[in-house]
Amino acid sequence: MLKVAILGGSGYTGAELLRLLLSHPHVNVTAITSERLSGSPVAETFLHCRNTDLSFESLNLKTIVKKADLFFLCLPHKTSQDTVAFLHDAGKKVIDLSADFRIRNSKTYEKWYETPHHYPSHLKKAVYGLPEIYRDKIRKASIIANPGCYPTSAILGLAPVIGETFVDRDSVIIDSKSGTSGAGRTPAQPFMFCEVNDSVKAYGITVHRHTPEIEQELSALASSKLNIIFTPHLIPMDRGILSTIYIRLSKSTNLGKIHTLYRNFYRNEEFVRVLDRGVYPLTKAVKGSNYCDISVFLDKRSAKGTTLIIVSAIDNLIKGASGAAVQNMNVMYGFDETTGLTSLAPSP
Amino acid sequence: MLKVAILGGSGYTGAELLRLLLSHPHVNVTAITSERLSGSPVAETFLHCRNTDLSFESLNLKTIVKKADLFFLCLPHKTSQDTVAFLHDAGKKVIDLSADFRIRNSKTYEKWYETPHHYPSHLKKAVYGLPEIYRDKIRKASIIANPGCYPTSAILGLAPVIGETFVDRDSVIIDSKSGTSGAGRTPAQPFMFCEVNDSVKAYGITVHRHTPEIEQELSALASSKLNIIFTPHLIPMDRGILSTIYIRLSKSTNLGKIHTLYRNFYRNEEFVRVLDRGVYPLTKAVKGSNYCDISVFLDKRSAKGTTLIIVSAIDNLIKGASGAAVQNMNVMYGFDETTGLTSLAPSP
Amino acid sequence: MLKVAILGGSGYTGAELLRLLLSHPHVNVTAITSERLSGSPVAETFLHCRNTDLSFESLNLKTIVKKADLFFLCLPHKTSQDTVAFLHDAGKKVIDLSADFRIRNSKTYEKWYETPHHYPSHLKKAVYGLPEIYRDKIRKASIIANPGCYPTSAILGLAPVIGETFVDRDSVIIDSKSGTSGAGRTPAQPFMFCEVNDSVKAYGITVHRHTPEIEQELSALASSKLNIIFTPHLIPMDRGILSTIYIRLSKSTNLGKIHTLYRNFYRNEEFVRVLDRGVYPLTKAVKGSNYCDISVFLDKRSAKGTTLIIVSAIDNLIKGASGAAVQNMNVMYGFDETTGLTSLAPSP
Amino acid sequence: MLKVAILGGSGYTGAELLRLLLSHPHVNVTAITSERLSGSPVAETFLHCRNTDLSFESLNLKTIVKKADLFFLCLPHKTSQDTVAFLHDAGKKVIDLSADFRIRNSKTYEKWYETPHHYPSHLKKAVYGLPEIYRDKIRKASIIANPGCYPTSAILGLAPVIGETFVDRDSVIIDSKSGTSGAGRTPAQPFMFCEVNDSVKAYGITVHRHTPEIEQELSALASSKLNIIFTPHLIPMDRGILSTIYIRLSKSTNLGKIHTLYRNFYRNEEFVRVLDRGVYPLTKAVKGSNYCDISVFLDKRSAKGTTLIIVSAIDNLIKGASGAAVQNMNVMYGFDETTGLTSLAPSP
Repeated sequence: MLKVAILGGSGYTGAELLRLLLSHPHVNVTAITSERLSGSPVAETFLHCRNTDLSFESLNLKTIVKKADLFFLCLPHKTSQDTVAFLHDAGKKVIDLSADFRIRNSKTYEKWYETPHHYPSHLKKAVYGLPEIYRDKIRKASIIANPGCYPTSAILGLAPVIGETFVDRDSVIIDSKSGTSGAGRTPAQPFMFCEVNDSVKAYGITVHRHTPEIEQELSALASSKLNIIFTPHLIPMDRGILSTIYIRLSKSTNLGKIHTLYRNFYRNEEFVRVLDRGVYPLTKAVKGSNYCDISVFLDKRSAKGTTLIIVSAIDNLIKGASGAAVQNMNVMYGFDETTGLTSLAPSP
Repeated sequence: MLKVAILGGSGYTGAELLRLLLSHPHVNVTAITSERLSGSPVAETFLHCRNTDLSFESLNLKTIVKKADLFFLCLPHKTSQDTVAFLHDAGKKVIDLSADFRIRNSKTYEKWYETPHHYPSHLKKAVYGLPEIYRDKIRKASIIANPGCYPTSAILGLAPVIGETFVDRDSVIIDSKSGTSGAGRTPAQPFMFCEVNDSVKAYGITVHRHTPEIEQELSALASSKLNIIFTPHLIPMDRGILSTIYIRLSKSTNLGKIHTLYRNFYRNEEFVRVLDRGVYPLTKAVKGSNYCDISVFLDKRSAKGTTLIIVSAIDNLIKGASGAAVQNMNVMYGFDETTGLTSLAPSP
Repeated sequence: MLKVAILGGSGYTGAELLRLLLSHPHVNVTAITSERLSGSPVAETFLHCRNTDLSFESLNLKTIVKKADLFFLCLPHKTSQDTVAFLHDAGKKVIDLSADFRIRNSKTYEKWYETPHHYPSHLKKAVYGLPEIYRDKIRKASIIANPGCYPTSAILGLAPVIGETFVDRDSVIIDSKSGTSGAGRTPAQPFMFCEVNDSVKAYGITVHRHTPEIEQELSALASSKLNIIFTPHLIPMDRGILSTIYIRLSKSTNLGKIHTLYRNFYRNEEFVRVLDRGVYPLTKAVKGSNYCDISVFLDKRSAKGTTLIIVSAIDNLIKGASGAAVQNMNVMYGFDETTGLTSLAPSP
Repeated sequence: MLKVAILGGSGYTGAELLRLLLSHPHVNVTAITSERLSGSPVAETFLHCRNTDLSFESLNLKTIVKKADLFFLCLPHKTSQDTVAFLHDAGKKVIDLSADFRIRNSKTYEKWYETPHHYPSHLKKAVYGLPEIYRDKIRKASIIANPGCYPTSAILGLAPVIGETFVDRDSVIIDSKSGTSGAGRTPAQPFMFCEVNDSVKAYGITVHRHTPEIEQELSALASSKLNIIFTPHLIPMDRGILSTIYIRLSKSTNLGKIHTLYRNFYRNEEFVRVLDRGVYPLTKAVKGSNYCDISVFLDKRSAKGTTLIIVSAIDNLIKGASGAAVQNMNVMYGFDETTGLTSLAPSP
């Protein structure tokens, strides 16, 4: 049994990680930390996990390092940096759910996250934890930068075509709709029930921190630097991200070929389902599961030429966070990649 | 007191029209029709209107024509055509909430609505009922084609700039998010609570019938024919449309100038509020009101040049349907344009 | 024009008061206070009121006392006491939306609110602001204790029968379901969207502070001291309270007689609608309005004899708070009691 | 591998059964029927099950009887009767999720369900499928009457005390709040999103068909015939039932003793969690799981003496339907009772 610990586990990401890990047949959760809840039983806070004996403990690096072989970090950025470095230097493996090791260019990181990056050598070792793209590197990695939720939906949606010559890679617009759990569990006025319920709004136009992460990965896939337009929206639902992605075609093609391209690209991927033509993804069909559903459409009406419209749906807390972290662990340790992740979405 | 009747009044649009008209100081609602509910008191179906003595009656044109001077039609398209023509020929004024008289080119209508248009001469007389654009024509009109909900949010969002030389009018992408009342009150599986709740999906990509309506009005404003890309989404909320609109700039400008342009364009409009720079519209702030909130943003990061991002919010049942109908009536009859429409959105 | 001010106006109750008062034809809102938001325009916080020029100001009693003749207080209890006393002693009228003057017995107040009451003489002058019960006293009052939301739904539901000899007044059970706005606008973990959405829970069993208020008023109506069982529940909706009330009958009667009793009791009340037999109240039919809908049912199956089941529905922010406050003002100042309160619930 | 079939599988109960059975290690789903969807792939309707190759087939008893050893019936009552009898007589085992075999007295059944019962001998063989009460009988049963959702929450909530001498068993009031999936998947106006969202209502007062089922089981547990008062409510959430249950005490006791009684009663039950004193159940903590959370409170304020207030929470589609069916199957076939049912509730 692999011993794992969750650091900074009192949020929604921690809750889902714990839930998934508790039912994983090859791991043993030995510790979960929270400064605020230190000393209290996990079951008091996570009412859905009432059968667990774990209690939150304060994060003491010197003692916790001995408790596990693999650490899941759900810490705020900056704090996460220091902890990743410490654990790595102590010979441990780390899956970091913060943004600290996602941006390979530390200057880009520093600009968007407004904090210095103190661990350039660790940054070089970190692997971006999207198994559908980086599976081989993840196998050998000791530091995994677990992807952001919006980036997962955007990158999986565009990966099959962004490197193709028939698309105009500078024309990408990503209009994303996210459930409220993406905002975290800390009380804040904009995420109170009565503010979010029965309403919708855009936010973070041109300034959302997931922008450089999406650009980095799409640029890598396209082998050329590109910028995107990204608009996130807040939706009155607990979970789920639906990304509606627009990209102009630079050469003529047809929907059948593009659909086949997607099907081929993901044909060995358990967790990416390219839907039949004409079927719309909906977040409810992936809620509570590690699946990403994708569908493709063509709009041929514009004078600017044809536009490819890709719609992708994930559960932001699972495929967009904790499920991806477990999937990364499975890859790193040679477990079957779907272990502990086969739940379908409850319906409705 | 102006005598008005509502034909086809058992849906959500009829319910809101009735609510607004019952509190309007210058009108008297003399009849409301419904085939299915004929004979039953309105208060039994519209539980919020329990104080009304009106009963639904079957639509008999020969008798109903005598009951009012102005008719609001919430009938299905095709049926609406015949009724508009009959009432108009009997010397009555009509505000038609169906799509039958919105599309000036009857071939375009026939293509998208898959039904012939039998009244070309009436079509010529019909005025598109968006007072912010056609106020003078509405004053003298006898047939008003009341705008669709999505088109209202899109046209008001783009009207100030679509005719400007600094925008690329062929680059318009409209990504809209709508509450579920837009789908109507008739039972259907996709709009059952458990299908919609806690989920989001796109639908109608490239085929939504509001597309030619938006294109017609934007083309008129731009004085040149254009096509758009339009993607509607279904949101787990009762009411509201948020449209996020993308349009490339063909010449350099800055946000301050664009913001001023919007403020000037709407400076005499009671029901369009151009928000301060950086403030995001949200549907909840317009729910239950006749307001349209608009905000503008610039994205300068793309290699394709700057993109203007416009976000507009309306209540689909009020500014997007029944409130606009009342506003049109006010203009037609010389009432103060805001009469009966000054309610602010209840919050939250 | 009556000059009014809102003290402590940054919460949901203040927002609704402001909205109602801004459209009231006989009043002029001269000030609204908030310590936290002092200096900022109201329109920045209350996005639905973007047309207002008011700014929040800090509460300075010496200056604010000169600004209005009637003061609406949405202050926390204890703070409210002091302010009521000061304003009253300065010759002003006060409608206090806190609980400070609702409980006539100061010892009961002190026990449930865990704070001393320093103004026994003011407490004697205060009138419980439920116009359906205390209209005559409200007319002459200078201090109004505006009722709590749960108590309004419970008292209006039971008022017609609690004094009747055919009910067992000691058997009252009130099972109430409330929207989340009742918890206020201050950020708190249990009222975050993701905690409340798609879930339901009971809370405050045997300890909710509205218990003594309900008991006081029912005891007064029954002319004998009684205790109740009261269980509030938190529902994933913005607004509304539905109270399902159980009371055993001590003598045989039938539903027709009870229904007639209710109809007669409320026959002159504009804002209480006793529904037809068999029709169920729902909160959506009163949302955004000042109405209270009531329906009565009999259960004759129990071996304990017949039980009367009363279901009442109100909007907790309007009839349960700010609408009632405006209604009280209308009564106090001789305005038509429905002025500014005739809005029906938008539907859906 | 046990071969199982789902008859009438196109509703929400069928969807959850299928989801649970697909991940059950000891069963093989060989058929799923639906008249309306016959011939279409299950994955087209149940979008969350996109990986399944099953197609719906029409229900032909002669052919389907050969396809499985155990049949789950999600058919409408009356239809279910005939099918249960046919399958049983063909030597098959049946778990019937309809109400047809729940009511042991066929006259009571006929009165509440307004249809004759044609299979009295089969009725005698049927076992009420609540393992916490009837585990031993379920082991040997060939016909299981799977309990209703409200009854499950009510019976589990009262089972530990209803037979005790210190309670007044004739005083039971059950006030239940249910998610909308309980109304089924067939389109109907009252369950449209816009009717249910942001609202709450009571329904079925004194006439809900789960009443005799609850009374039968409580009477059996109490060894004396009793009637209850039962009021269901419709809540704007997908899943979950919260039952708030009131029962007067006839003798003095204290909360500690009652809490211990509950803990002892369920100490060997995996799926019933008696919460710590003072902790409130919420439906979200059991959503997507087979758990029933229960908490007990005492109200000592009433002149009528002390009242025990029990709050129980289940997922109506799992512990209240399909999960219970799987649990029954596990008991019948000697599988570990928790097999396929260990998922915790995703949170939030």
